[in-house]
Amino acid sequence: MTLSGTNGRAYNSTVAGARQETASRRKGDETREAILGRALTLASRVGLEGLTIGSLADELGLSKSGLFAHFKSKEALVVQTLERAAERFREVVIQPTLAAKRGEPRVRVLFDRFLRWPELVPQPGGCIFVGAAIELDDRPGPARDSLLRMRKDWLAFVAGAVRIAIDEGHFRRAVDPEQFAFEMEGIGLMWHHATRLLADPKADERAHRAFEALIQAARAPRR
Amino acid sequence: MTLSGTNGRAYNSTVAGARQETASRRKGDETREAILGRALTLASRVGLEGLTIGSLADELGLSKSGLFAHFKSKEALVVQTLERAAERFREVVIQPTLAAKRGEPRVRVLFDRFLRWPELVPQPGGCIFVGAAIELDDRPGPARDSLLRMRKDWLAFVAGAVRIAIDEGHFRRAVDPEQFAFEMEGIGLMWHHATRLLADPKADERAHRAFEALIQAARAPRR
Repeated sequence: MTLSGTNGRAYNSTVAGARQETASRRKGDETREAILGRALTLASRVGLEGLTIGSLADELGLSKSGLFAHFKSKEALVVQTLERAAERFREVVIQPTLAAKRGEPRVRVLFDRFLRWPELVPQPGGCIFVGAAIELDDRPGPARDSLLRMRKDWLAFVAGAVRIAIDEGHFRRAVDPEQFAFEMEGIGLMWHHATRLLADPKADERAHRAFEALIQAARAPRR
Repeated sequence: MTLSGTNGRAYNSTVAGARQETASRRKGDETREAILGRALTLASRVGLEGLTIGSLADELGLSKSGLFAHFKSKEALVVQTLERAAERFREVVIQPTLAAKRGEPRVRVLFDRFLRWPELVPQPGGCIFVGAAIELDDRPGPARDSLLRMRKDWLAFVAGAVRIAIDEGHFRRAVDPEQFAFEMEGIGLMWHHATRLLADPKADERAHRAFEALIQAARAPRR
């Protein structure tokens, strides 16, 4: 079908309109991402309880009403901040892992990126997920649901990487991938506690030694 | 020296006064302990941020001014609640451990009591120390100092129990007691996360399996 006359013009103007709409939506997305990035940093410092439309407006030097138009409610702001954190986590922790060799090498990259997460996406008050878990564990609602789904997805991803390491013959068949994920997460939580509250200069070293022991215990005997 | 005459009476009346003072101090201590017990439960639910003289007065059905006379400030209330939690922790986790056989048996009892802590001293919103660590890690002050000292004492106690297990020949000489304490604490933190947010029915089983692996790796080869 050829485009001519009014139909063609209508098409062209629709295309231009769509382009304009896309551009403005992209700009809107960028603004939203920038706002949510600041919300993430703020939540790391003050917790999700302290993350309100008012406190974020102060942080950004924006009007509360302008921000309210973006998020409608504190709860929506909290949920979207968590979702944005999960998106960033996928970008800086999960995606680079997929570029690593399947099996033990990938599990190692996973752990390294995992420990570096609060530095790769700066979280001056500590990992947003660790704080959120404490705040939300007894508060049913969309924020808790969202966090729970993220945490389960993450543990399942770790278990999946371990399963691949078993399939590749790097880890023993008897290794329980969910158990591995549980223990690795424990090392991460203790590392977080040791770097944050305890300010233990050996936190990194201890976390890596614990992870190494976990890997050694999982390894298939060399043939 | 004999007591007679006015001196004797003075002594007797001093003794009676001291007894009365002790009794009233004991009563005061009991009241304080009862109040701090409720403060502990409340802090578990609402966090240290939410633990205020006002919220505790509501919880106890007491007047805010009466409670203020006891604690003077929110900060004093928070510090005393943490100190009371540490006292209860010593009673239900540490002391029973000391009755256990030195070495590996004691380390095992230690872990068991440690996991049961939020149940032995009911903490409906999860372990007060885990929550406090997140809230206080970037808030310098007496509450943070107090918590930090408690956490270090606890990790040192675990390391000490491991050192005894090495001395008893239960664990290998190469075992690093501080590393063991770091890893055991990590299992505890993950158990807390898995029981609280994740509501994982396998949390207990997974924590015990992780601990068993830690013990097995530490064990001296059987002679």
